[in-house]
Amino acid sequence: MPQRIGKRTIMINGLVTIHSAAGVAGKKETEGPLGKFFDKTYSDDTLGKTSWEKAESALQQDAASLALAKAGLTPLDIDVMLAGDLLNQCISSTFGLRSLGIPFLGQFGACSTMAQTLLLAALLVDGGGCSSALAVTSSHFCSAERQFRLPIEYGGQRTPTAQWTVTGAGAAIVDNSGKGCPIKSVTIGRITDLKVKDANNMGAAMAPAAADTISAFFTDTGTTPKDYDLILTGDLGYVGSELLYELMRNEGFDITDNHNDCGKMIFDRKKQDVHSGGSGCGCCGSVFCSYIMSRLLSGEIRNMLLVATGALMSPTSSQQGESIPAIAHLVNIVC
Amino acid sequence: MPQRIGKRTIMINGLVTIHSAAGVAGKKETEGPLGKFFDKTYSDDTLGKTSWEKAESALQQDAASLALAKAGLTPLDIDVMLAGDLLNQCISSTFGLRSLGIPFLGQFGACSTMAQTLLLAALLVDGGGCSSALAVTSSHFCSAERQFRLPIEYGGQRTPTAQWTVTGAGAAIVDNSGKGCPIKSVTIGRITDLKVKDANNMGAAMAPAAADTISAFFTDTGTTPKDYDLILTGDLGYVGSELLYELMRNEGFDITDNHNDCGKMIFDRKKQDVHSGGSGCGCCGSVFCSYIMSRLLSGEIRNMLLVATGALMSPTSSQQGESIPAIAHLVNIVC
Repeated sequence: MPQRIGKRTIMINGLVTIHSAAGVAGKKETEGPLGKFFDKTYSDDTLGKTSWEKAESALQQDAASLALAKAGLTPLDIDVMLAGDLLNQCISSTFGLRSLGIPFLGQFGACSTMAQTLLLAALLVDGGGCSSALAVTSSHFCSAERQFRLPIEYGGQRTPTAQWTVTGAGAAIVDNSGKGCPIKSVTIGRITDLKVKDANNMGAAMAPAAADTISAFFTDTGTTPKDYDLILTGDLGYVGSELLYELMRNEGFDITDNHNDCGKMIFDRKKQDVHSGGSGCGCCGSVFCSYIMSRLLSGEIRNMLLVATGALMSPTSSQQGESIPAIAHLVNIVC
Repeated sequence: MPQRIGKRTIMINGLVTIHSAAGVAGKKETEGPLGKFFDKTYSDDTLGKTSWEKAESALQQDAASLALAKAGLTPLDIDVMLAGDLLNQCISSTFGLRSLGIPFLGQFGACSTMAQTLLLAALLVDGGGCSSALAVTSSHFCSAERQFRLPIEYGGQRTPTAQWTVTGAGAAIVDNSGKGCPIKSVTIGRITDLKVKDANNMGAAMAPAAADTISAFFTDTGTTPKDYDLILTGDLGYVGSELLYELMRNEGFDITDNHNDCGKMIFDRKKQDVHSGGSGCGCCGSVFCSYIMSRLLSGEIRNMLLVATGALMSPTSSQQGESIPAIAHLVNIVC
């Protein structure tokens, strides 16, 4: 059963694994450096649906179906599903997964959702009462643009610090089958708000949350960055990653050698014009559940920290002059 | 530790209790039949803030502070907080609770959030790794109206089946202190969609979800309605409650004798013009955390089911012609 060590980290003492995972991605993502690793790709980002929101729901549905198929499981084998997304009232998740008939606990962690659902799945399976959980998240460039920024037809200019919302989804099955990659510990994030107000610079808003969670994890476990093959943040992008290095140095930790960020990995900075990198729940979701999982299973990565970060504001809160609270959740995976 | 019985119900085997709870409510709610039971009331629904959204955040902050004070605890004593609300990107929760510094897992269950956060708190505390959790939710009539329906200044007509979003919040501390009211079992809801499309008749959309969860609980536990002093649904209101009776009769259970609904209880049907009753996360939140908790602690209620229901649609999904998926989570409390 789970056991707290230090102030905020919880050890997963039983054998709880990411049994299988699947990442799906849109056209632009497929043209990027990780294109060949996605489990399913789409040449048309509408996915043949009549709205961007319905297309995003279909991304979740596909990712969940693929994760189940990889493990040879059906929805009846899953005790609980944990899912969330960026859309108002999390409709990508509720509409995308409603046909599965699996008990559902909706999650809201913005772009931290992949780590939030994985850590909660690990706690529930290790704690007892659930033997298997499905963790799912998604984002879609077009549904996010029109909800958070401007109608895509408007063709608005983007600032240099802006990130590009990934069209993609990730789904993972966490269970006690003993198969796959074990989750060894988790650290739940705290809402961190250093009063950044620029909604076009999410990296700056989220970096302090990542630093807070990663520092807490190192302190709680008595480990240092060099103990991990990879410290993978969700979508800080180029700007946020640099800020994270600085904040971590202030805490006495140098993570530059083994850090990477899904928002930096998913697009080609030179060939694809995405400014500060990728973002959205589906960025960490699709990259972790496809490319990273394949490297974990092949033994290329043996001990990593997945640290997905989320910005917890809304267009309404920004219009009302509020700053951007952020959060980062951490999952330690040891294969 | 938690243990599954039957298909969907999970027993909480350790002594996990609702240590303390607090419900706060706005002006109209205070004028209703439960007015004197709320832990804090407001004569001005702005709470002195500059927006309805900021006022709703303040409701959560007040409810959480009161629940902590009642238990003689500080935020440092709480391992995790679980909170959610109806606003886009759950900003009432993230902004209302950001100053507490407690590790946070954002929840989205629409009006089922009070039961969702309580059941997850019970699973995490019983499962180990957390000794205490704070469960919080809220709604505000004015922030909900302008987000989901029309600007309040418009004064739009309401249909007879419409419900009135409660201005209120509830917060509860679930821990292993042994004090308060024990949570004995929980049933996680499934997304249920019988293709109701009328966004002004949430009761009809949510009743099938409540029937699904309550029937599963009775089947899993081998109990019947008469084994419980109270079966309390969240906010089905008058229309939804009648539909629930019919659906439950079809499943072979008559719950009419010991059922009540927070949406029916919070307003005076004759004196307060709310059509089908109250609704919103804060309806179940404020009624359960104040009036019902006081009756549990006094021994008037000894064995009850709290079944909060949520409609998982958004204005966008309804505009795109979608039906309304719903969910209901159940918490069995035995004092």
